Amino acid sequence: MIMGQGNTAAYTVVPEGSITTPKGFKAGGLHCGLKKTTRHDLGAIVCEVPAAAAGVYTTNVFQAAPIAVTRESIGAGGVLRAVIVNSGNANACTGKQGDADAYEMRSQFAEAIGVPAQQVAVASTGVIGETLKMDRVRSGIAELPAKLAANSQAGDDFCQAILTTDLVKKEVCVQVIIDGKPIHIAGASKGSGMIHPNMATMLGFVTTDAVIGSQALQTLLRQVTDLTFNMITVDGDTSTNDMLVAMASGLADNRELNISHPDYEAFSAALRYVCEVLAKAIARDGEGATKLVEVQVRGAESDAAAQAIAKTVIGSSLVKSAIFGADANWGRIIAAVGRAGQPVNPETVDIRLGDIVTLEQSRPISFDEEAALEYLKGDTVVIYVDLHMAEGSATAWGCDLTYDYVRINAAYRT
Amino acid sequence: MIMGQGNTAAYTVVPEGSITTPKGFKAGGLHCGLKKTTRHDLGAIVCEVPAAAAGVYTTNVFQAAPIAVTRESIGAGGVLRAVIVNSGNANACTGKQGDADAYEMRSQFAEAIGVPAQQVAVASTGVIGETLKMDRVRSGIAELPAKLAANSQAGDDFCQAILTTDLVKKEVCVQVIIDGKPIHIAGASKGSGMIHPNMATMLGFVTTDAVIGSQALQTLLRQVTDLTFNMITVDGDTSTNDMLVAMASGLADNRELNISHPDYEAFSAALRYVCEVLAKAIARDGEGATKLVEVQVRGAESDAAAQAIAKTVIGSSLVKSAIFGADANWGRIIAAVGRAGQPVNPETVDIRLGDIVTLEQSRPISFDEEAALEYLKGDTVVIYVDLHMAEGSATAWGCDLTYDYVRINAAYRT
Repeated sequence: MIMGQGNTAAYTVVPEGSITTPKGFKAGGLHCGLKKTTRHDLGAIVCEVPAAAAGVYTTNVFQAAPIAVTRESIGAGGVLRAVIVNSGNANACTGKQGDADAYEMRSQFAEAIGVPAQQVAVASTGVIGETLKMDRVRSGIAELPAKLAANSQAGDDFCQAILTTDLVKKEVCVQVIIDGKPIHIAGASKGSGMIHPNMATMLGFVTTDAVIGSQALQTLLRQVTDLTFNMITVDGDTSTNDMLVAMASGLADNRELNISHPDYEAFSAALRYVCEVLAKAIARDGEGATKLVEVQVRGAESDAAAQAIAKTVIGSSLVKSAIFGADANWGRIIAAVGRAGQPVNPETVDIRLGDIVTLEQSRPISFDEEAALEYLKGDTVVIYVDLHMAEGSATAWGCDLTYDYVRINAAYRT
Repeated sequence: MIMGQGNTAAYTVVPEGSITTPKGFKAGGLHCGLKKTTRHDLGAIVCEVPAAAAGVYTTNVFQAAPIAVTRESIGAGGVLRAVIVNSGNANACTGKQGDADAYEMRSQFAEAIGVPAQQVAVASTGVIGETLKMDRVRSGIAELPAKLAANSQAGDDFCQAILTTDLVKKEVCVQVIIDGKPIHIAGASKGSGMIHPNMATMLGFVTTDAVIGSQALQTLLRQVTDLTFNMITVDGDTSTNDMLVAMASGLADNRELNISHPDYEAFSAALRYVCEVLAKAIARDGEGATKLVEVQVRGAESDAAAQAIAKTVIGSSLVKSAIFGADANWGRIIAAVGRAGQPVNPETVDIRLGDIVTLEQSRPISFDEEAALEYLKGDTVVIYVDLHMAEGSATAWGCDLTYDYVRINAAYRT
């Protein structure tokens, strides 16, 4: 069971924490030449002991070569020593050459750090359909071990190395008390366009020093993903490369976490918080976005119905454009609610924009247009929809649709 | 059964034809004050005899008041004498007042032209959530009968009166030989944004002088809608007001059309052509669009699978942005194919842009970038996807995603 965040959650944010804060983890990143700029494009996370590992992956039929390699690594024994990631090229739709390249990345990096190849995961992100410049990847991998460190600068180098059209890096670290001991959970992610996760998303990496088995971690990761990464959308497009990998070093020395552990819910809430922060950061940094949009649906027939409605509203180009224009056009919100394919009573819907009530029991309420304009100009907009039918609820995150989204995507490849 | 268009179709386009060309129909339009500009915003089609009628409507849960009124009229006896339409206000989410206003539009216009109220259909399009300025509607309805005529100028006035953000009017007329006699089918439609029809679309009106019963017309209209209006998308948003109404005056004096009539397929093909022309005109005139995009999917497991894939590709914001930028980014096309939720063999996909092959058996083919740029800069772009699995096929239409789409929708209401 997933706890709600809030007053019952026992975790605290570690302001200076990074992906390397949990005990046992190093990270690093460098520029090997896959990006046209001099920004980092190759990075790795390495654990000093075999870490219990779990992964969730894109549901797109066309899965990039590294997805299969990482599946195989985690599937082999449920443990990872490292993950190697490149940006600038997705290694997707690249045929047998792409498969060979992903396997070579795995074996070369495994050899460089002296671990079995099957304990290394591989991830790629960038342009689809071009083969990797492997000479550059090879020299990068040769240099990478010397860059690995356990400090926050090294964590930052990793975070930079996985970005593509992202404007900002995305990382978070929390501390949670398990068996009376402080343990850490940290996460890093990337993602800005082609964001409509389904099962997993973009690239996301979670490290923790908690003791938890691979199966328990896999179950929990999937539950948390459904409530966080799978509830964001930038443009409705699901990538070929989505991957979220979690690694638990076990060096925090707690009793092994499972569903009957008294602190399981605290751990679960902390992991959910980490994933929610990363997911919201991706939505706020959506291509061209000027703000984060949050849609809260309450009173639906089920949580699943609420999720479908929240994702339909957050995915509506018309709603997204109206919010960019700071136009309190609630008619578009209700039109999206009504086409979500879920049970809705057309007579009992409330809609609020922040504190501004625009619809009550499906009747338009006259509101202060000036106040609405002010609110919609802010950097975060929350849309509340209450269906007054039952107890189902969900929250989804996205962003506005802007000129810059079009500009970025009209000229991404060329 | 629906015939394919092409060499077997016995219809011919009537270049100067309009919604009033089929025998028995008059039309007209005027400005009554619902639009801020002086453009027409109230129009009607009137038939001199009771016309067999059929309608398909939006599947949105929130259905505008006129939808219920029109359903009731057609449901009562399967005949219509007239349809009255306003633009500038959708009369949607307007509660009991909205219902009363739609009924009043029906009864006032019925009285003005001397027909039973239940033989009048009502349609509205425009802003959601504002009540109609009925004083303006009433004076408009009082003036409208004097404007009705059977010429093409009157047809044009009607077409103008139903537009909102549309840049161009949408009408077409064909002639088809039934029982050796020439009969006509004409259509008019509007639609530019909030376009993702499901069962019916935007506003569409079809007139014909063929003899055909209301049930046969209803069955055929639904079949044709699935292949035409339901295969277009501008922005993935389904309106609260979508309505397509067909009226057959029967004045062409053919033997009544039904599925065993030897010319049924000719009539069906002609009706499909009329609806396809109107649907494509809506897609090409999508808000902010600079071009029409057509997606043809072949080799799918079923027609339904092909339809789902074609609609996913045509609806992808990333594909639409790339086409606006004349970027031959086929990686986004294959990513959309792969997330459509349909059976796809990831090893056997071909993709072409016009004549330019970019992917064959899922392997990238190097192509002439200059030629691709030239092709994508044209006013019509055709994307071919062949899955090489079975015989399922479908065609969908849409448009590119541009700065102007964002501009129009960031400031629609204010």
